[in-house]
Amino acid sequence: MEVFIEPIGRLMNEFSKLPGVGKKTAQRYAYRVINMSEAEARAFADAIVDVKRKVRFCKVCGNFTENEVCDVCLNRDKSTICVVKEPKDVVALEKLHEYKGVYHVLHGVIDPMNGVSPNDIRIKELLARVAEGGVQEVIMATNPDVEGEATAMYIAKLLKPLGVTVTRISRGVPVGSELEYADEATLARALSERKQI
Amino acid sequence: MEVFIEPIGRLMNEFSKLPGVGKKTAQRYAYRVINMSEAEARAFADAIVDVKRKVRFCKVCGNFTENEVCDVCLNRDKSTICVVKEPKDVVALEKLHEYKGVYHVLHGVIDPMNGVSPNDIRIKELLARVAEGGVQEVIMATNPDVEGEATAMYIAKLLKPLGVTVTRISRGVPVGSELEYADEATLARALSERKQI
Repeated sequence: MEVFIEPIGRLMNEFSKLPGVGKKTAQRYAYRVINMSEAEARAFADAIVDVKRKVRFCKVCGNFTENEVCDVCLNRDKSTICVVKEPKDVVALEKLHEYKGVYHVLHGVIDPMNGVSPNDIRIKELLARVAEGGVQEVIMATNPDVEGEATAMYIAKLLKPLGVTVTRISRGVPVGSELEYADEATLARALSERKQI
Repeated sequence: MEVFIEPIGRLMNEFSKLPGVGKKTAQRYAYRVINMSEAEARAFADAIVDVKRKVRFCKVCGNFTENEVCDVCLNRDKSTICVVKEPKDVVALEKLHEYKGVYHVLHGVIDPMNGVSPNDIRIKELLARVAEGGVQEVIMATNPDVEGEATAMYIAKLLKPLGVTVTRISRGVPVGSELEYADEATLARALSERKQI
């Protein structure tokens, strides 16, 4: 005899596909759904189907959008392009409400160890955007890890001949942290990239 | 401008209704769904709707079932009834593959502070089952907390006149734990309920 009846087991199995969700958590989620009203459960299910049906990639920047071109690309300052690895990086930056330019989502970084070459990410689309003109600065905001740095350097080299300023987000000790707990690479970087005050 | 487009924001909102899911986790889940295939997302949504449509309460024991009476009530030894607070407690016990009797799910415990009186939980249904005859033992397996203990005592008092053995799961130091870290109430209990070896 199974511990869970089929519909509950199946829903638990679906929840288990979400990142970081194990069997125990999947059970808690499934039981929560059982306790929802019929209308609530229906709204939940509809939201899942809708996100697949309505969300696509902006044909300019590659970020998620409901339209052909996203609101950011339509309404913001196109002279600055911020290059990121994934759509969630756009979210992180948008939450600051600081940046007024547009984005370019690479959908990955160059990672030969995992078989990701420059042709597998949206680099030529970025070059085409810059080649069209009107772009003054490209901010490389890929992650400060090995692949992110390499990708930033690679793209910068391709962009410079196009006469555009290429910048990189600064790396150093996180604001509010304590030096004592900073890793060596970060601390070394913070020291070597010190600024006059 | 919203940080999330509407379908993503809506799905995040739905995920946020799950226990322990905050905004950040909801975002990760939503992004996972966006990366699913259309078929996967559809299966996920169907599982949610199905669980509401197919799962109901066994009219005997009150546990989840797809039928009128659950498989446990249909196939197992009815002379022993194990009384628990919630369906998830049945799952915990079934995982042991030890218990051969049937269950009775109270759907709550007596908790006057939160307005739950004996009439609000499935006590009279339990009394009716026992009154029907054939039951030899009722195991009170409510949680070893204040409400669980009080509910167990309350029900035991009602059951005893019916000539049935009423037992309570043992409380003591958890197997594999260290005495040093046991709380005082548990340790005192383990001492007072010591057994001859």
